[in-house]
Amino acid sequence: MVLDHIRAARAISRVELAAATGLTAPTISEVVRELIADGLVVEAGRGVSTGGKPPVLVQLNPHARYSVGVQLERNMCVIVIVDLAGRQVARTSFRGAASMPPDRALPLVAAQVDALLATAGVDRDKVLGVGLVGYGPQDRRAGTLLTPQPTQEWFGYPVARRLAESLGLPVLLDNDAAAAAIGEYWMGAVDPRSTYGCIYMATGIGGGVVVAGEVYRGSSSNSVEIGHISIDVNGDDCPCGNRGCLENYAGPSAVVRQALAEPGLAQRLGLDPAEGDFLAEFARIGAAANAGEPSARALIERSARYLGCAAVTMACLFDLDVIVLAGPSFAVAGAIYQSLVQQEVDRRTFARRAHPVRVVPSVSGSDAAAIGGAVLVLQSELTLGAHARPEDGARSDAATASQAAAQPAE
Amino acid sequence: MVLDHIRAARAISRVELAAATGLTAPTISEVVRELIADGLVVEAGRGVSTGGKPPVLVQLNPHARYSVGVQLERNMCVIVIVDLAGRQVARTSFRGAASMPPDRALPLVAAQVDALLATAGVDRDKVLGVGLVGYGPQDRRAGTLLTPQPTQEWFGYPVARRLAESLGLPVLLDNDAAAAAIGEYWMGAVDPRSTYGCIYMATGIGGGVVVAGEVYRGSSSNSVEIGHISIDVNGDDCPCGNRGCLENYAGPSAVVRQALAEPGLAQRLGLDPAEGDFLAEFARIGAAANAGEPSARALIERSARYLGCAAVTMACLFDLDVIVLAGPSFAVAGAIYQSLVQQEVDRRTFARRAHPVRVVPSVSGSDAAAIGGAVLVLQSELTLGAHARPEDGARSDAATASQAAAQPAE
Repeated sequence: MVLDHIRAARAISRVELAAATGLTAPTISEVVRELIADGLVVEAGRGVSTGGKPPVLVQLNPHARYSVGVQLERNMCVIVIVDLAGRQVARTSFRGAASMPPDRALPLVAAQVDALLATAGVDRDKVLGVGLVGYGPQDRRAGTLLTPQPTQEWFGYPVARRLAESLGLPVLLDNDAAAAAIGEYWMGAVDPRSTYGCIYMATGIGGGVVVAGEVYRGSSSNSVEIGHISIDVNGDDCPCGNRGCLENYAGPSAVVRQALAEPGLAQRLGLDPAEGDFLAEFARIGAAANAGEPSARALIERSARYLGCAAVTMACLFDLDVIVLAGPSFAVAGAIYQSLVQQEVDRRTFARRAHPVRVVPSVSGSDAAAIGGAVLVLQSELTLGAHARPEDGARSDAATASQAAAQPAE
Repeated sequence: MVLDHIRAARAISRVELAAATGLTAPTISEVVRELIADGLVVEAGRGVSTGGKPPVLVQLNPHARYSVGVQLERNMCVIVIVDLAGRQVARTSFRGAASMPPDRALPLVAAQVDALLATAGVDRDKVLGVGLVGYGPQDRRAGTLLTPQPTQEWFGYPVARRLAESLGLPVLLDNDAAAAAIGEYWMGAVDPRSTYGCIYMATGIGGGVVVAGEVYRGSSSNSVEIGHISIDVNGDDCPCGNRGCLENYAGPSAVVRQALAEPGLAQRLGLDPAEGDFLAEFARIGAAANAGEPSARALIERSARYLGCAAVTMACLFDLDVIVLAGPSFAVAGAIYQSLVQQEVDRRTFARRAHPVRVVPSVSGSDAAAIGGAVLVLQSELTLGAHARPEDGARSDAATASQAAAQPAE
């Protein structure tokens, strides 16, 4: 708990820590002494005097510990190493892992993590663990995916345990959008007391909600699946089982499909459906929209309005202060999305008379999920005490994360 | 906390209480002695021996305290008195209050509460307070409605404070659907560790979600406004500001409108639009549907499918174990709704492979909101310690309720 207060404050005196935590001054002194001995905290100059001698400030030692975030997307794997402050110190990405069977893909991911740690010169003993994040549904405690995507072999495969075995590091599995959401909190980008949501758009669309610094979990951590809520009760069936799902109207593949259906547009924008990389095509449409190409602009605006409809639903149900837009599919035309989603939310949210809902871009941009995965490890390992609520048992965020952290076989 | 464990267990020994709470045996003995001295708890026979002498059981004394629930609906006001166990001991209802200006309506409500307490022979000193519940949006802390419905005079009017002044009792304001949701928990109708939602249908449609015994609040307690999420992104504008709102497709007034649009149906069912009581008309359509009248059945089934679509959205976002259907508009055709909403949820919910979502009727039926309002007072007054999380400050459920409980001017 003390460590979390130091993280949140960036630099803080022992007196301020006692006031913030409610602990006594001798207890704070003792805890801080231990944190300094462990290398987690360092003294960092003096603060402003409040009458007597200016107090010594303490802050996190960002180089004391590291964690790894691995985002397994349908067509891309991103790996980041972050320090204790959640800052990215190394990054790599490669294609193709998720299209292999898991017993080939996971050793490949492990080799890339090893290589990145070596390149970055990060001491393995200082690595707290790996946050492996991907789309849902998942059995987070078992560390398995509950979806036959991309191939049937991934369904129920012990992804967290196998990666832990390959790496010799604890691995926790979590949802990519939930990870992206908690990343914002750890980086100090949102008021720590706010209730905020994250819309994460990569190949698909996911969501996460954070309440006072903890991911909203629900029954099984398969919450905020905003890509598969219906925005049209009479819409087409989706492979997920629902119909009229947001993803099929607003997502990158839907926008590319809509573009290809417009005569002449594919040629004007240089789209090539044979290439098979719809994220690259989507980025071309986004760039053309930014440049003012009317048809491209209309397509991105329509996607943004659909996303706005779902954002209003999310705000109406979770009563949000802030909606963060995160992920690679906001990289090109993010400003158009931000502006139109904000308009929809301002105009249509039920409780708009009670308080505004701000729509903002993620501070972690395209890599928000991978960075968030690494942050979930930091949060789980370092602030367990502050967040574990014993009466929630296995449903508690930190407690579950700790259980889900598969230990490597020795 | 001890009191909440006794409530949840119905009858429990001191040894079991120590195990459940983690407190020491002497502390439990002392707390139970105080609760008995206050009359809140009574001894109630002996339990099963685990070797030695069978232990003495303690249970709540349901007659020790009472609370009042007042539900202010657009065309009906329901008042209930419940005992400490959440059981209804008296009830009254009357029409017309919400169509008056608030400075006439609230003294009328106060007079009805006074009359009901007198009729039921409940000692005023034993009444903990009044839970006033209605639709949103609301400023719960200020005790005001943030909607110009039914008339502009209600917007921002200090309803909680004025009722408290009239009655000489603390009054807290809350959302009707959130109240209905927490009522299920207090009555022991759901697993206390589950995450469940409530869809509340009266003249409108509202929602509430409870996570491990606490109402999900979000930023301002204006959460789960399921009646005003869009189920058709291209649908008609709603007075709320959104478009394609669930309420305009599935709600009682929508079903009556659809019935009147079918040639001959109004006459066959004996509907009379001139009567102006669309809840009575809706009940007639529900009764005809139950009796197998094909057009009426088709209308109710369509309403249930629309509701099912929103229930799937709610389950996908909150990751629910259970959805409770509550409120007077499920009184007649509730079984049809339950069956079809269950079908939709089974077929379409994203995380259905992770766990099932059960759809069940409320144990409190039509009066769920009023009873829930009274339960919110019990929870706020009696289990404050267990639920208040100081770091949440004013956003914490119990803490806010306590602040919002306007004290009468003396």
